[in-house]
Amino acid sequence: MSIDVYWASGSPYSWRVLLALEVKGLPYVSHRLQLQLQEHKSPAMLAMNPRGRVPVLRDGDYVVFESLAVLYYLDLQYPQTPLFGRNAQEAAVIMRVINEFQAYTESALMGLVESLLQGRPPRFSGEMAEAMHCVASEARTIEGRLSKGDWIVGDNVSAADLAIYPFIRLVMHCLRRPGAEELSARLLPAQVHYPALANWLLRVEALPGFSNTWPPDWPALP
Amino acid sequence: MSIDVYWASGSPYSWRVLLALEVKGLPYVSHRLQLQLQEHKSPAMLAMNPRGRVPVLRDGDYVVFESLAVLYYLDLQYPQTPLFGRNAQEAAVIMRVINEFQAYTESALMGLVESLLQGRPPRFSGEMAEAMHCVASEARTIEGRLSKGDWIVGDNVSAADLAIYPFIRLVMHCLRRPGAEELSARLLPAQVHYPALANWLLRVEALPGFSNTWPPDWPALP
Repeated sequence: MSIDVYWASGSPYSWRVLLALEVKGLPYVSHRLQLQLQEHKSPAMLAMNPRGRVPVLRDGDYVVFESLAVLYYLDLQYPQTPLFGRNAQEAAVIMRVINEFQAYTESALMGLVESLLQGRPPRFSGEMAEAMHCVASEARTIEGRLSKGDWIVGDNVSAADLAIYPFIRLVMHCLRRPGAEELSARLLPAQVHYPALANWLLRVEALPGFSNTWPPDWPALP
Repeated sequence: MSIDVYWASGSPYSWRVLLALEVKGLPYVSHRLQLQLQEHKSPAMLAMNPRGRVPVLRDGDYVVFESLAVLYYLDLQYPQTPLFGRNAQEAAVIMRVINEFQAYTESALMGLVESLLQGRPPRFSGEMAEAMHCVASEARTIEGRLSKGDWIVGDNVSAADLAIYPFIRLVMHCLRRPGAEELSARLLPAQVHYPALANWLLRVEALPGFSNTWPPDWPALP
């Protein structure tokens, strides 16, 4: 019985799962898929996840997908280094913060990322400005939480940190692309605009095994 | 110490929480808010949820919001009639199905609902047709699951049922509005187009305390 994980470089959903495996110190067999080659839509992958999306995790005969469900499974099955809190109250705050991120930030953030990756001129169209405003405002909320503690919820790293970190890094990665200068100047350097958040990034990046999760086709961390 | 729940009639997110409280047989104090009067944006409500959204649940001094986080809290704090499965494998499937619903159905479905509620002519604009297609296709997936068992995941009612039911009923409610005839004919009667799903609706509606959760400003169940 071993854990197999199917993932793609730069997919923030995949990154969440790699982080959880490393933080929990679980051994796993890594299967990096090339999305450009449609490897996530192969018959073998579709047999595991009919939606043809990554990440997918297989643990022996059991298959699970959707990144948050994978984190939840890993936490229940391998309780060491708990990711979903130490009591009902903390657990629900972790779930709440993740759900707020999904409901109010993720889609604007991914829209911004897509525009930047496609090299569309990041002019301040209405939609773009709205997405920027939303992402900046949610970043301020997270900054507020992190100015009160080391981790997004409670005294320890949790699923909230692992769920949100990859999206923040993905945006920062995209803001380094040519053409993103105007947008970039409004958010970066993080150390200036969001100091607590910038320190939290370093804290996540100091977690055991973190370097094994860095997207292999990205430049190394500055 | 008592449970206070703040909710709005017809809000599918609120409905999830009322269903969970009833299914678990928990006593609660019900506070129905009038959204038209902006009661969810009152200072007292904003002090509990700065986003000014319902549902909000208060249990003694502890406040939780975001419907899925509320269900999760209730399940951890009051484990009778477990809603998140009986083992890690089942728990993660429940979480996965809820996350799939959130990621791939909810926004199309709510777009459709909004159009119908605003009485916009439900002509088949591109966006509308796409939303219809998405909702119908996800309904077929759920129909597939329900043709194999009584509940969406496993042998018992779970958070997956309570999370999805209110959205299905909300769409059906909106499809009865004048102007929705063309759309309605493609989906209803559910007994004809989605027979397993139609039987599951009846099963949910036979749960203990269900009638206490029916939106008070809707016509009674047909």
